[in-house]
Amino acid sequence: MTRTAVVLLSGGLDSATVLAIARSEGFEIVALSFRYGQRHEAEIVAAQEIAKRAGVRRHEIVDIDLGVFGGSALTSDVAVPKGRSASEMSQGIPVTYVPARNTIFLSYALALAEVSGASDIYIGVNALDYSGYPDCRPEYIEAFERMANLATKAGVEGRPLTIQAPLMHQSKGEIIARGMQLGVDYAQTLSCYDPVAGGAACGECDACQLRLKGFAEAGVRDPVRYREQATAR
Amino acid sequence: MTRTAVVLLSGGLDSATVLAIARSEGFEIVALSFRYGQRHEAEIVAAQEIAKRAGVRRHEIVDIDLGVFGGSALTSDVAVPKGRSASEMSQGIPVTYVPARNTIFLSYALALAEVSGASDIYIGVNALDYSGYPDCRPEYIEAFERMANLATKAGVEGRPLTIQAPLMHQSKGEIIARGMQLGVDYAQTLSCYDPVAGGAACGECDACQLRLKGFAEAGVRDPVRYREQATAR
Repeated sequence: MTRTAVVLLSGGLDSATVLAIARSEGFEIVALSFRYGQRHEAEIVAAQEIAKRAGVRRHEIVDIDLGVFGGSALTSDVAVPKGRSASEMSQGIPVTYVPARNTIFLSYALALAEVSGASDIYIGVNALDYSGYPDCRPEYIEAFERMANLATKAGVEGRPLTIQAPLMHQSKGEIIARGMQLGVDYAQTLSCYDPVAGGAACGECDACQLRLKGFAEAGVRDPVRYREQATAR
Repeated sequence: MTRTAVVLLSGGLDSATVLAIARSEGFEIVALSFRYGQRHEAEIVAAQEIAKRAGVRRHEIVDIDLGVFGGSALTSDVAVPKGRSASEMSQGIPVTYVPARNTIFLSYALALAEVSGASDIYIGVNALDYSGYPDCRPEYIEAFERMANLATKAGVEGRPLTIQAPLMHQSKGEIIARGMQLGVDYAQTLSCYDPVAGGAACGECDACQLRLKGFAEAGVRDPVRYREQATAR
């Protein structure tokens, strides 16, 4: 019997790679994306393209309003930081941190896993590049999995759910190299926190800088379009 | 310094009692309610009245779409069961179970606690009356608390969050007796899964039956309006 996995799909590089990994492990895919007070719709469009190309069984897009809680540059008017080096990014918890975001995302994924009969949830969190986000660490993922198996019918009835975070300890360069092997088309993915009109990536925000650094490490040219000649610092 | 608590407020009897308990313990209250593909708006109106009367600092009502996931009588077209005895209700997981509902609710509460600087989240779950819901058990609440303290800035920075479930081991009769002591006006609360036109409670669904049984145990007349002369089985 084919096993089913729910894959959290943001439209970014990491989650596109995770989707390809889940498929390569033989899962039928139910993709889950969120529209959450983002500044732009482009990443939902990217997620839809990626899901379609991957031939997922189902793709749910859920509207959630994190903006009501404020407190993050991704959902409010705090300025997105630009031009920081990797070492600057690793200092403390970044302003782009959204309160409890991964917990809310994984909770919806848990509901969808239950109604889809999925045995696994895949999430593209990474402890190396985003060390400032508390909800990207292995101990957090393990605690969520434990909680999830106490929360649901499936867990109670002896069909435990596994939270898969296959990128947890990989560098951006390793993630990209893995995705290239699996045939991910990174031209479809979007990482920028602050894309300019027309959809080009800014090349300056933390996400663009990590991405450019990753492609440099992997020795591959990033196929997405940047505003200007952007390079990793 | 006044401590702040987030209280999950459904508009029902249990959460109104929990709000009164949190206030009696000296917390300033941030109430949180959800509009989630419910069949009726009445419980939101009840929650607003209760919050207003209690003088909460803030009351957030968040729209969430659980209906997209299907799988429950509360959000889809599965019939709400009627006329069951307490022993019938305790058999297995009820059809009114919403997949991962408390996990989703607590995740939003966690986000709101973080942006409000709250140290506690209050939830009116009960292991006795709803023994069929996996996400109403103490081991679930403990696992959520543990996960929450790994997920957030506050937890990481040494300001741990406590999930308070003060009704966990209380009977409905004990809950009502406690609420009466604290001055809860149960006329404002709504429990029915399937109210009739005009807002009267049906008297027949599991929630009505548990409520009527609780008032009978507490030796108090239920002030809400029922469709017909309703009594506990």
